[in-house]
Amino acid sequence: MTDKREVFASPPGGLSFSEALGMTADEVNSLLRSAPAVIRPQTSHLAAASGKGIRARALLTCALREGGLIDPAAVKAAAAVEILHLATLVHDDIIDKAKKRRGIAALHTRFGEKSAVLCGDYLFCIALQLAAAVPDVKDRAENYDETLPGYLTAICLGEIRENKNNRNYNMSEREYFKIISGKTAALFEASFHLGFLLSGEPENKKSAYLELGRSVGMIFQLADDCSDYESTRKRSGKPVLSDYKNGIVTLPLIRAMKNDTSLRERVKQGIAARELKAAVKAAGGLEYAHGKIYGYYAGAEKLIAALDLPPEKKDRLEALLQTASGLPAEGTAGSETGRETDELHE
Amino acid sequence: MTDKREVFASPPGGLSFSEALGMTADEVNSLLRSAPAVIRPQTSHLAAASGKGIRARALLTCALREGGLIDPAAVKAAAAVEILHLATLVHDDIIDKAKKRRGIAALHTRFGEKSAVLCGDYLFCIALQLAAAVPDVKDRAENYDETLPGYLTAICLGEIRENKNNRNYNMSEREYFKIISGKTAALFEASFHLGFLLSGEPENKKSAYLELGRSVGMIFQLADDCSDYESTRKRSGKPVLSDYKNGIVTLPLIRAMKNDTSLRERVKQGIAARELKAAVKAAGGLEYAHGKIYGYYAGAEKLIAALDLPPEKKDRLEALLQTASGLPAEGTAGSETGRETDELHE
Repeated sequence: MTDKREVFASPPGGLSFSEALGMTADEVNSLLRSAPAVIRPQTSHLAAASGKGIRARALLTCALREGGLIDPAAVKAAAAVEILHLATLVHDDIIDKAKKRRGIAALHTRFGEKSAVLCGDYLFCIALQLAAAVPDVKDRAENYDETLPGYLTAICLGEIRENKNNRNYNMSEREYFKIISGKTAALFEASFHLGFLLSGEPENKKSAYLELGRSVGMIFQLADDCSDYESTRKRSGKPVLSDYKNGIVTLPLIRAMKNDTSLRERVKQGIAARELKAAVKAAGGLEYAHGKIYGYYAGAEKLIAALDLPPEKKDRLEALLQTASGLPAEGTAGSETGRETDELHE
Repeated sequence: MTDKREVFASPPGGLSFSEALGMTADEVNSLLRSAPAVIRPQTSHLAAASGKGIRARALLTCALREGGLIDPAAVKAAAAVEILHLATLVHDDIIDKAKKRRGIAALHTRFGEKSAVLCGDYLFCIALQLAAAVPDVKDRAENYDETLPGYLTAICLGEIRENKNNRNYNMSEREYFKIISGKTAALFEASFHLGFLLSGEPENKKSAYLELGRSVGMIFQLADDCSDYESTRKRSGKPVLSDYKNGIVTLPLIRAMKNDTSLRERVKQGIAARELKAAVKAAGGLEYAHGKIYGYYAGAEKLIAALDLPPEKKDRLEALLQTASGLPAEGTAGSETGRETDELHE
């Protein structure tokens, strides 16, 4: 008689991508809904609307092992990354005085600012606790402890830099890239890093994973910043020009003001939303930002190709890249696995 | 010829307590003064006024090894604990709308609330980064990663609980103890825990160190809460009744309102500061809180005795206990080492 344990010995247990993604959503949801009573009204409110889960997807994709299965520990790591992200959103919304988030009332509008600051702090703490409890990562990476806090510092400095440059219409492109590299790309890189550590991939592939993570993050933020000037409603669920109205200066505007020198003065004096959108487009601001996206995209494609991955992992990384860039995903994940639905995806 | 390395092999290097304390102050100062330019105005402002450094003292005292020397890694851990504490003060002062801290302007009054929230977040991140870089702790404690974030969550929940009970004059004594156990005692316990891990002491002494740390923290907060109703200026540098004025309900008042049933109504309707101080004292609120301090103090004395420590370590723990309880230290640290002056002590 066959010993079941032997049959499943290699890889030793493991989850399919869809299973891991579903379990991550459950883990996040359960952490929010079962928080201590004193903070549960706030965390339950947050549980009512879920995000896209792109950081969890990134981590789980990178964690795919040779046989197409994922170490169950990756679920905790992915949930940690999503909760960290949620913590930054809660604090961001206070700073930006945003009224809505993910289609429902922003936390501070419902519970007050004090309460929201503290809830953000709480989410930050439980995310760290969760990440610290991932045994495989701790065992493998001799510098794991240094990396996650290091990424958090980078994110924080990005937020500080953005806040400092609020309504700074003379901001340089260089400063913009410093900001998004911190506030967004650092957490994507962390997600790729954690996924890589759980993947069993050899050490010599690490730097490619980190660079890929950073690129996906840059693409994600650039695409989001473009959508502020493009669509009728941003994919984040926020209305168009919401960043602009909050004084957040992004690449399409920076470039447009460089190309059209009169625009800077008109912006400083106050300009109507429709006029601004048209001017940014006409002055080539969007085109320029899209060019940057394509640059990162092409670099990422090369990195993926060079990683020499099994088809599912490669396809999923490609799909992630497409999602980040705002392109509709083309079912590249392969017919075997299909495009799973998941609660994290809104 | 004697090989120098052999002579100093046991303990392998190491710092005296005074050296370690001075280096901790330098480390904190240097981290604040050399922060990235984008946040340096804020961190430099904080560097201009130092605290008592009691948490650093606690950690370094617990880290004293058999031969009276301290692992240099303890300096980083002690600096991390002090910076974490500073991070909580920055956020606290926003929430309490405090105008002063450590004798100078509170950060948010000088730089605005957004900036202060972000600076607190930044300090939190660099403290974690610093703590994570302590190699000996990481090697020794298989659950280190779980403990520090666990303590942080406890601190955060204490703050949340306190905020929720703001101006709740029906708050129970039990709720009060839950609050201070989180907001204050957790970081003291963490300091004792980290110090213990670096001390080379056997595992079977761990629980005594943790309980001692928690007791010192409870004593520290109880004494601070008493001083709000006692002295003309609190040892924290804040004016008397400042907690009360911020709606923070503490044990002397809780007990006084229980003993003097008319006081609760008078408090709810608004009562003059002098009258309140007299009433809390007359109704036995201060006496009761001091009784609680003595209870923890006696328990801590027993724990120290049972730990069976070398004289310097024992004396320093006793001195710490006295400092926490607000009693003047009696030079118990021994004539050999004396009472060192240090920059952290204000």
